[in-house]
Amino acid sequence: MEKWKRSARLVDMVHQLLNEPYRLIPLTAFAKRYHAAKSSISEDLTIIQEVLHAEESGQLETMAGASGGVRYMPSMGMEETKTVLAQLCHKLTNPERILPGGFLFMSDLLGDPVLLHHLGRIWAKIFGTSQIDAIVTIETKGIPLAYAVAFHLRKPVVIVRYDTTVTEGSVVTVNTVSGSSGRMKQLSLARRSLPKGSRVLLIDDYMKAGGTVRGMIDLLREFEAEVVGVGVMVDSIVPEKLVDGYVSLTTVTEVDEKEKRINVEFGNLFDQGVYNNENHSDQ
Amino acid sequence: MEKWKRSARLVDMVHQLLNEPYRLIPLTAFAKRYHAAKSSISEDLTIIQEVLHAEESGQLETMAGASGGVRYMPSMGMEETKTVLAQLCHKLTNPERILPGGFLFMSDLLGDPVLLHHLGRIWAKIFGTSQIDAIVTIETKGIPLAYAVAFHLRKPVVIVRYDTTVTEGSVVTVNTVSGSSGRMKQLSLARRSLPKGSRVLLIDDYMKAGGTVRGMIDLLREFEAEVVGVGVMVDSIVPEKLVDGYVSLTTVTEVDEKEKRINVEFGNLFDQGVYNNENHSDQ
Repeated sequence: MEKWKRSARLVDMVHQLLNEPYRLIPLTAFAKRYHAAKSSISEDLTIIQEVLHAEESGQLETMAGASGGVRYMPSMGMEETKTVLAQLCHKLTNPERILPGGFLFMSDLLGDPVLLHHLGRIWAKIFGTSQIDAIVTIETKGIPLAYAVAFHLRKPVVIVRYDTTVTEGSVVTVNTVSGSSGRMKQLSLARRSLPKGSRVLLIDDYMKAGGTVRGMIDLLREFEAEVVGVGVMVDSIVPEKLVDGYVSLTTVTEVDEKEKRINVEFGNLFDQGVYNNENHSDQ
Repeated sequence: MEKWKRSARLVDMVHQLLNEPYRLIPLTAFAKRYHAAKSSISEDLTIIQEVLHAEESGQLETMAGASGGVRYMPSMGMEETKTVLAQLCHKLTNPERILPGGFLFMSDLLGDPVLLHHLGRIWAKIFGTSQIDAIVTIETKGIPLAYAVAFHLRKPVVIVRYDTTVTEGSVVTVNTVSGSSGRMKQLSLARRSLPKGSRVLLIDDYMKAGGTVRGMIDLLREFEAEVVGVGVMVDSIVPEKLVDGYVSLTTVTEVDEKEKRINVEFGNLFDQGVYNNENHSDQ
């Protein structure tokens, strides 16, 4: 394509920006690609920014200077967030999810790439300003959630494992006690998978007592990492947690194995500072 | 936003279409959202389609009728594919990846959400017309790749596990022999995680002899599933494979532990039918 009309330019720019959140694209790269003046590119970006802002689906950040450019930071408005989470709550209350011991079958939800993509965008809004270096999770069920966040924040995923395999090189291992079952578990992380002093966001699917997250925090101390946030898709109202200050998207308030009943509500995410203004405007 | 100009409409439509590949959006939904005539929406879609086509980054498919609409099918052109895979090959040849036994450290690559997103788009091009019902992979390293494909094809991910946990319900288990090590392994899949008769795409990170994929195919037979494709990020030129007709993105042709040398080439993907026309136009 030699000559680009504004309409074609807009389509291509939105594609490039949204396809790789947080990638910094120099304005000169756009100007060169479209054979357009920088002032035209700036006008295009204003149009894109206005639509994103109106739809609360993120924003463009323009950085000046030689190493500057523009990048897309994904977000999700309160209304859309509540719609996504209401659907998740509804799916979680299906009594067929109840497994022996009061566990919940969730593999279908964790296998749904559309749901995960939406949840990733919600976490990107909550943790987008936390200067995160890496997303840390634990095998197996936390992995898809971690990637959904990682895509939206353009940060690497690091996976803590229950056992060590030959293809990881030297590993650091800690012992931890599962808060709910009281059983001992070993958590391991390959030495070369996380640089010392990283700022990390912990992501997991489910928190009951928080023993696993507690163990992950202990393990990360060996890497001198700073845990700047913890996010779980589902937590439970009991028992008391071994971890403070985590963000849950949904909360299981009741699992009645005998009566085949599950109750699920929104988690504590709307108590986070990032939603404060929007809470006020609701009232 | 009450009134939408064409430029704003284009930005919003591209966002909606590209944010959820393969989601069918009724034209009436667009018309209503933008207070625009269907003919204007059709013109907008033509503009979007022209840009996607010119950049070889996918296409729009419009389906007529009451249940019709438009959806975005992602793709990637030959040139961009070769650029992505050349970077992957380059990273794989780093001699520091060599672990004892000739294994390769790849966790950093499998933790890179941008690389994974690109690889997902490549596989979406190769398998996009295969009428896939589910993407099946095996814990742990195949999971991020499977999700990258699943996002681009809007299909669920199903994870085969080495051990069964209490939160899966009833499971089907098969025994298999690792082709390279000769060791016995147990592969399990929750009964309720895959409907009988599904058409599945198998995705994994690495294939040496193919024993694990062979075992997964045996396991899927218990679900009366049809394996319509197998894709691996990396395969090796030796030993001979236990599986035919799989697609590899890259191929390790040499790992010299002593000399600290790795050679990696493009895989067999360009031999696939989907690249035929493009191969010809190259000549």
